[in-house]
Amino acid sequence: MTTVFEKIINGEIPCHKVYEDDHVLAFLDVAPLSKGHTLLVPKQIASSLHELSEESGAALGAALVKVAKAVVQATGATDYNILQNNGAIAHQAVFHVHFHIIPTYAQDDGLALTWTPSELSGGEVLAKEIHQSL
Amino acid sequence: MTTVFEKIINGEIPCHKVYEDDHVLAFLDVAPLSKGHTLLVPKQIASSLHELSEESGAALGAALVKVAKAVVQATGATDYNILQNNGAIAHQAVFHVHFHIIPTYAQDDGLALTWTPSELSGGEVLAKEIHQSL
Repeated sequence: MTTVFEKIINGEIPCHKVYEDDHVLAFLDVAPLSKGHTLLVPKQIASSLHELSEESGAALGAALVKVAKAVVQATGATDYNILQNNGAIAHQAVFHVHFHIIPTYAQDDGLALTWTPSELSGGEVLAKEIHQSL
Repeated sequence: MTTVFEKIINGEIPCHKVYEDDHVLAFLDVAPLSKGHTLLVPKQIASSLHELSEESGAALGAALVKVAKAVVQATGATDYNILQNNGAIAHQAVFHVHFHIIPTYAQDDGLALTWTPSELSGGEVLAKEIHQSL
């Protein structure tokens, strides 16, 4: 299944392009949460972040800094969220990796989050398990 | 003002470390939204993503792929969100850049989002303004 983002990368569907290099493409979200809502995608075809090469990851990270800086400068927003969803129950809708850059201009616009933290237990064992999976 | 994450980087406050290299540190969030909720921070001291060097950005991006893969493997979660907040009205609480890696195991756990999109207007002009700010 070819995703809409793959079609944008291939030039089969137009976009409002903001940035492009060998590894990534950034363009405006057509259904923005706020003015300046931008998407950054790797050209590598993968559904989830952990499936990417570290080279793609590095290119995305460098481009995030670069594009966020340009969004801030162009929109005047100083506050913004970076969001990247992996999997249907984590709210992913297009199954090609994409980072959202979502400016916020006031308390009630941009990305709305509900934060319900718990208390960490068994942290020592869990950190070791994750570390050993590296 | 020294942030708690700067103190963790400097070893003044302990953490459940998951990953470290020359540029970044990853450790478990002590107030997790779900099992495996991990934080990834640059060693470069900056409050917002756009203030980082592209070198720090690249290191963060590569480490996001690596650490997400390990979190997936260790926890068994396949779905997860990457979130990075910049500024108080964008829900930032600690003013040192940090990426959340938040596993989701079911519809009602992990990161809760409310998505209220609008329709893009003036996209051509806006994309040009952002591009020219690069």
